[in-house]
Amino acid sequence: MLMITAPTSNTPLYLEDLCVGQRFSSATHRLDEEQIIAFACQFDPQPFHLDRAAAVDSLFGGLAASGWHVASLTMRLIVGDRAPFAGGVIGAGVELSWPRPTRPGDVLRVDTEVIEITPSRSKPDRGIVTVRSEIRNQDDKVVQRMTSRLVVPSRNAGVATGQGAT
Amino acid sequence: MLMITAPTSNTPLYLEDLCVGQRFSSATHRLDEEQIIAFACQFDPQPFHLDRAAAVDSLFGGLAASGWHVASLTMRLIVGDRAPFAGGVIGAGVELSWPRPTRPGDVLRVDTEVIEITPSRSKPDRGIVTVRSEIRNQDDKVVQRMTSRLVVPSRNAGVATGQGAT
Repeated sequence: MLMITAPTSNTPLYLEDLCVGQRFSSATHRLDEEQIIAFACQFDPQPFHLDRAAAVDSLFGGLAASGWHVASLTMRLIVGDRAPFAGGVIGAGVELSWPRPTRPGDVLRVDTEVIEITPSRSKPDRGIVTVRSEIRNQDDKVVQRMTSRLVVPSRNAGVATGQGAT
Repeated sequence: MLMITAPTSNTPLYLEDLCVGQRFSSATHRLDEEQIIAFACQFDPQPFHLDRAAAVDSLFGGLAASGWHVASLTMRLIVGDRAPFAGGVIGAGVELSWPRPTRPGDVLRVDTEVIEITPSRSKPDRGIVTVRSEIRNQDDKVVQRMTSRLVVPSRNAGVATGQGAT
């Protein structure tokens, strides 16, 4: 589902296959009220994520998806049918912000750009790839900004084990 | 479920009720393999979150919860039975890192400390409260660090509407 804009590839990418400025675009996902409420019931049970009427008087001015729901959907869209990176999409750390609410009926997509590539000094079998992802709705408005540091293996990696990322 | 260490309170807190250094401790949540796989199926379908055998050869060296699952559970634990802040727990932005994997059987709790309080210059009815949350397992090991900027209303707030947070 994840389409790589440049270079085109259908095989998992190693550290050496990536370059700064490389862009990825995801498929889309339509979020509805039922999904918003189901996620909120389980993980973020606050009135503005649960109840259309109660949400009107909140800061959001109407029902809005939990930011954690939007973040989790972002991961789903980036992973797609097959993770784009060899070894999977593994985050060491992330920064997130939500400039505007995500509403029932919004159709979300994720545009990602590689902004930094840093081979690990201590572990030559991997590196950290920093990517910036913007999640937009059907009106092309950004509903979430995310900068992630991903652990990506090098082509010369053996079987990666252990728990430290860098 | 969220217990406020100091000062003790059962009523929602406004900006004026908070002080730097104030601490909150959540209830606990036990994560099992079924929960880990259910979340991963929906939001992060990668082998190391889905399949105990396949996970052995991954960077994680065994089945591990999605970081987004841990983050979402953190929100659930902070919100508790009733959000501690007047107006709810509303994040404007967040930084996250996962220093070690979260495993089936882990019992998670969240310890939160207020580290900065900034009244809004443009909107006198609210402010930004920065909190640092550490999520620990039953061995007291930190599995996630999170710094969040929360929108908290002032006591003199009217009905808060609109979408801008600050």
